[in-house]
Amino acid sequence: MNENNYVVIMAGGVGERFWPMSKVKRPKQFIDILGTGRTLIQQTYDRFRRVCLPQNIYVVTNKMYRDLVLDQLEEMDQEQVICEPARKNTAPCIAYAAYKIYETNPEARMIVAPSDHIILKEDVFCEVIQLALQAANESDNFYTLGIKPSRPDTGYGYIQYVAGSRFDLSPLMRKVKTFTEKPNEDLASSFLQSGDFLWNSGIFIWSCKSIMEAFEKFQPEISYVFQKAQGLYNTPAETPYMEKAYPTCKSISIDYAIMEKADNVYVFISDFGWSDLGTWGSLFEARPKDASNNAVMGQNVLVYDAKNCIVNVPDDKIVILQGLDDYIVSESDNALLICEKSQEQQIRRFVNDIKLFRGEEYV
Amino acid sequence: MNENNYVVIMAGGVGERFWPMSKVKRPKQFIDILGTGRTLIQQTYDRFRRVCLPQNIYVVTNKMYRDLVLDQLEEMDQEQVICEPARKNTAPCIAYAAYKIYETNPEARMIVAPSDHIILKEDVFCEVIQLALQAANESDNFYTLGIKPSRPDTGYGYIQYVAGSRFDLSPLMRKVKTFTEKPNEDLASSFLQSGDFLWNSGIFIWSCKSIMEAFEKFQPEISYVFQKAQGLYNTPAETPYMEKAYPTCKSISIDYAIMEKADNVYVFISDFGWSDLGTWGSLFEARPKDASNNAVMGQNVLVYDAKNCIVNVPDDKIVILQGLDDYIVSESDNALLICEKSQEQQIRRFVNDIKLFRGEEYV
Repeated sequence: MNENNYVVIMAGGVGERFWPMSKVKRPKQFIDILGTGRTLIQQTYDRFRRVCLPQNIYVVTNKMYRDLVLDQLEEMDQEQVICEPARKNTAPCIAYAAYKIYETNPEARMIVAPSDHIILKEDVFCEVIQLALQAANESDNFYTLGIKPSRPDTGYGYIQYVAGSRFDLSPLMRKVKTFTEKPNEDLASSFLQSGDFLWNSGIFIWSCKSIMEAFEKFQPEISYVFQKAQGLYNTPAETPYMEKAYPTCKSISIDYAIMEKADNVYVFISDFGWSDLGTWGSLFEARPKDASNNAVMGQNVLVYDAKNCIVNVPDDKIVILQGLDDYIVSESDNALLICEKSQEQQIRRFVNDIKLFRGEEYV
Repeated sequence: MNENNYVVIMAGGVGERFWPMSKVKRPKQFIDILGTGRTLIQQTYDRFRRVCLPQNIYVVTNKMYRDLVLDQLEEMDQEQVICEPARKNTAPCIAYAAYKIYETNPEARMIVAPSDHIILKEDVFCEVIQLALQAANESDNFYTLGIKPSRPDTGYGYIQYVAGSRFDLSPLMRKVKTFTEKPNEDLASSFLQSGDFLWNSGIFIWSCKSIMEAFEKFQPEISYVFQKAQGLYNTPAETPYMEKAYPTCKSISIDYAIMEKADNVYVFISDFGWSDLGTWGSLFEARPKDASNNAVMGQNVLVYDAKNCIVNVPDDKIVILQGLDDYIVSESDNALLICEKSQEQQIRRFVNDIKLFRGEEYV
């Protein structure tokens, strides 16, 4: 295993879309959503242990989840958990990780990956990752994994590639033309029809050196914050400095900050059983179903004439469901959600309303 | 207030139809279902305090509810709570109460009434009750209150009266022709069209002496059990005797045991805002509704596009409802029910299934 391989797992999300199963105090990545015995972040860690040494795995998260991370990832040291002093989207924390890792190892290549995706074909995944790590080693290009779209999903950003571009490294590699926003239905359909669009997986690979240079070029105000900390990384001075300086960064995604500005981004067309489990709908797809097409998570759920539902309730809860068709039923602690699957995008609004009208403690 | 007026409140039911709001450990009669500040049994007690002295009010219930009764009805003495050693329907426990009261007061007239009905026009009710008590004093007839039916409800037994019968005591009084079973829809409709049918309210009035004689005549095996206890009532020997002897009674309703056999039963046509609150549907009718016709019991229920529902959840539970139309949503302790209002008759079956497949402790 190459000692220059690093991975930065992004685990700060509060998982509002899966409320109440996923709550601020225990969001989605810390839950064994699929019932496999390992939480999503544990599965992500296990996946990257196949390409990185344990001491080369970092987790970026929110201060409030620090103990949860150390609890669930027993091999991790405190040093490997980077706590964002404030939520500023992905670019600042990626910069933070890059500068910190570079100080330990200037030869480092880093993978950036979310903590809450599932990847069913892990062998295929590892092959692609190794190719990308190799490429990142041999150039200062940026690499990402783009998922072959199976439907005109409006929940993802898309990556358009240069259709004719071919490279020796891999038949799957293309040059990125542009990153897009999440499209509406019509646009998503046209993307699929166009044939040169992929879903943005949020997985990136590059050398620390290259991304640092990109920050200096495209986001000097952000890079300044982390350049100033050189010499402080991995010392007691790092955290007090970051507490003060990090919040001065603007809030911006890595896609906007760097990927859409750089002209040397490449994408691997990927097909390894990926799901971001970003919606109840995707969880419904991923779970086994009963004879009436219900995905039921809970040991004491009795279903009568209900179909096409996704149910997530504690094991000690007796639940009777009669007559529902195509609903989400989720119960957790002192919260209950009953919502049509087709209306799940409203859940964020519901959660906001709860915060507004009842208080933050309920979410 | 006449010191010969007694009331026997029947409070043994386990309220399965309202699961999970009403559970074996705290059934419907012990719940403030209407949110008025008094539970149903407390309201029943308050109602009969208008016609009976406190020491003349008895409650028949199951052993497991004894403390709940004494808790909720603070004026009651232990002696006034009659615990059925076994569930044998209404005839045996009415006989028990009659023999027991008679031993204290041979002049007693007793009202038998359920503990979980609502009566909105209590003044009208009291007038009718007084007439019935007076009649029971002057004869050995049996009296019952029959509710003027407002719809062909299949949830009640009916009472048919002799259409032409008239009596000086009250223009509302008729002679009973027959008691019927709960009818199906067609039969119920024909009852209403016939014009001489009333809902059986389960409220009876008679003198202790008359009902005891009726038991001796029509149910000698039952009366034998309670005759043998004469001299033991209201002594420490009463309970040990009943523990052994009571369960030998056959299980039978007062309607079958006596009312349908006697030829001197009279009914008062009654219209005093009565509901047996026997179904979620009737509770839905009785509760105030929001703008989308939902009856919501719970302080933290947020309703989005849901209508015609009845919701009963604890006040500290955050509940989001989206998209439901005509459902019951009830959450209590470790149980949750979601069921179409039109299918509520299935709830008994659901509760049985829970007992069978998961265990008695869940209901």
